Amino acid sequence: MASVNPPRGMRDFLPAEKARRERVLSIIRDRYRAHGFDEIETPVMEDYDRLHAGIGGDNEKLAYNVLRRGLDADAVREAAADPAALADLGLRYDLTVPLARFYASHRAELPGVFRSVQAAPVWRAERPQKGRYRQFVQCDIDIIGDASTRAEAELIVATLDAVGALGLENATVRINDRRALDAMLDAFGFAAAERPGVLITIDKLDKIGPAGIVGELRERGVQTAAVDAFEAFMNRPQALEHLPFGERQIRNALPDGVPDDVIADLVAIGEAVAATQPAAVPDGPPLVFDPFLVRGMGYYTGTIFELAHPSVPYSLGGGGRYDGMIGRFLGTDVPAVGFSIGFERLVDLLETSEADAAASVVLIHDADVALGDLLALKSQLVSEGIRVRLERRPKNLKALLERAMSDGFTSFAAVRTDTTRAELEVKPLA
Amino acid sequence: MASVNPPRGMRDFLPAEKARRERVLSIIRDRYRAHGFDEIETPVMEDYDRLHAGIGGDNEKLAYNVLRRGLDADAVREAAADPAALADLGLRYDLTVPLARFYASHRAELPGVFRSVQAAPVWRAERPQKGRYRQFVQCDIDIIGDASTRAEAELIVATLDAVGALGLENATVRINDRRALDAMLDAFGFAAAERPGVLITIDKLDKIGPAGIVGELRERGVQTAAVDAFEAFMNRPQALEHLPFGERQIRNALPDGVPDDVIADLVAIGEAVAATQPAAVPDGPPLVFDPFLVRGMGYYTGTIFELAHPSVPYSLGGGGRYDGMIGRFLGTDVPAVGFSIGFERLVDLLETSEADAAASVVLIHDADVALGDLLALKSQLVSEGIRVRLERRPKNLKALLERAMSDGFTSFAAVRTDTTRAELEVKPLA
Repeated sequence: MASVNPPRGMRDFLPAEKARRERVLSIIRDRYRAHGFDEIETPVMEDYDRLHAGIGGDNEKLAYNVLRRGLDADAVREAAADPAALADLGLRYDLTVPLARFYASHRAELPGVFRSVQAAPVWRAERPQKGRYRQFVQCDIDIIGDASTRAEAELIVATLDAVGALGLENATVRINDRRALDAMLDAFGFAAAERPGVLITIDKLDKIGPAGIVGELRERGVQTAAVDAFEAFMNRPQALEHLPFGERQIRNALPDGVPDDVIADLVAIGEAVAATQPAAVPDGPPLVFDPFLVRGMGYYTGTIFELAHPSVPYSLGGGGRYDGMIGRFLGTDVPAVGFSIGFERLVDLLETSEADAAASVVLIHDADVALGDLLALKSQLVSEGIRVRLERRPKNLKALLERAMSDGFTSFAAVRTDTTRAELEVKPLA
Repeated sequence: MASVNPPRGMRDFLPAEKARRERVLSIIRDRYRAHGFDEIETPVMEDYDRLHAGIGGDNEKLAYNVLRRGLDADAVREAAADPAALADLGLRYDLTVPLARFYASHRAELPGVFRSVQAAPVWRAERPQKGRYRQFVQCDIDIIGDASTRAEAELIVATLDAVGALGLENATVRINDRRALDAMLDAFGFAAAERPGVLITIDKLDKIGPAGIVGELRERGVQTAAVDAFEAFMNRPQALEHLPFGERQIRNALPDGVPDDVIADLVAIGEAVAATQPAAVPDGPPLVFDPFLVRGMGYYTGTIFELAHPSVPYSLGGGGRYDGMIGRFLGTDVPAVGFSIGFERLVDLLETSEADAAASVVLIHDADVALGDLLALKSQLVSEGIRVRLERRPKNLKALLERAMSDGFTSFAAVRTDTTRAELEVKPLA
């Protein structure tokens, strides 16, 4: 007999938790919609070849692959050494690869600047651990077809608004630019071959600190002169503060050699976000410049950003500009930038919302009440906007009423055959 | 290069269609919630063994199976003859098997009578054809733990209310009972071994008519005397009318020998549904008795029903009582009855809803407008509850405005640097 639990690393959602998740999703969708983003949906499966084309980075290895239908034992043996012969489909591991495929397929039907929302599950066969699931929801917004900083500013403002609408105050976005990182590594003299490894190390700054970074770079055997230069740069006073925006502040936080247009872009985004003064972050600047922000994915080409909150040490989401990827499917260059909220982490952070505000009543009836009278009364209440649950009178009425209250019901009433709406004595459950 | 289309038989949803689907889902969920049903969610994947335990009927053969992770070529060759060694998971092909597993896992945390809603996708590797998809949404409500006819009455009333709230007038539910069917086949003298085939034939009544049924039964080589008796029964005057409820009408529509309690159950359900007089069906009885209704699934044990609408020849959903299934996972008997709406067919039937009622505006700006001013103005409008799309002034303004209108926007305004909210001249798009 198979276990009655859900598959390893996946979750069932009971009514209260499901309702909470839907409320959070609904607020996020509503905010993004107000900011001009349109929700789309793609199938949960994509072609195996598309999921394993090198765009998904390390996530490709975590994909759930779907067996071809109709293979007999001989066909399986023949296909044994070739995953693509065994599996023709897979479950998406992110929402970016499907979006790129979607855009390539439907470009002619979409506005010139297309602002998409996706709020949907993805699957990764990761080692299950606390807070990591094999099926989890991502909320992505993307702007395709806008090469200007207007796109970054819209994404960041919309995301801060959504997070604020959820009651999460003082969220901040950290921003950097891959082009600034490249120029920085140039300035310190890291060799091209060393850079991917150097970036992986710098990405750990929040965890291991500047001394840890320098130590790890030395262990990696990176050129000593470059590490020395980098160490001196990080040890300047205030080098590691996250800075409010302004051209002078950004220039001071970077070594010489970062192109003027990269700095101008960052300044423009910072000023635009500051101009909106999101209500969610009354106590500080909502956007800070972080010259050591890296982000893992290889496809970023310009700005990169992360959503942070003072109550947790990990990021709540992130994104960046990936001008190269959509073009791969179209054979033409298409600018694109996206921001993905880690929905599961966000939901875990939010306090339990109170129960539904809507009126609700539990109707307690004896077994012999006429079914027609009971259903007619229920329908009458439902048509008045009241949520109704029917319960046969139990031996232990107190336990039943407590259960109903914990399920979010607010009142109850006893019903007999012929009880009319006017006669119904509704009592509060509290 | 892989195709940019979604996988075969699966669909992308563009913004207008996605919004329409979400509106329909939201109305259905809202109605079911009002009727006391609670939404739950299970993972899209279930254990392979559970999906292939014989409960899913023919759908088991249509399951998408998910390859075990980490199999090397040797392991694949070894597993070639054993699907369960090759695949440990599969995508659900219905919402009933996951519900049974969910209930068995969480029974202690759920109310004694549990009313669930699930509105979620399922997957079947069917031959793609018009109106059939390999990923499609089902909306199921189920009542677990109530053996009485109250459960059937609540399911039917809630479903008629949901369909009515969608604006689909004159939907009806046809009802029968497997026990009545069994008694009918008894009365005509069909042998036990013949009955499954006889039911498959009777299930085609809507398509091939009574003469077709009799012909097919004779071709099947079923006992002549039984077929003759059945033919005579069907040829009685008014035998094939769908009847309004009343004990006399139901008795007249059935041969002798149907147990009194089965008839009493049908009468009770009919009277209860009639007592609610759903607003959606002003022109006729919402529930009709159909003594020849069969329903395909083998797990039904009592009442069975189908949702119909005069504008289409196929059913829009159906369900029935399946008291045996949940117990299989628990080792104890648990009564259960469910009603599943065919969401895709329903969505196809509904007229396109009008655009969002919410206010919306397209802000047209020149490339040199200050980004901070633009975003501040956008945020101001968003905070007033207005949906905003930014557009750089194009060469062809008319085409852009037409596009925005077809995307549901209702007004537009031109923006320059320093344009304030008060100065904004909003013009209707129509």
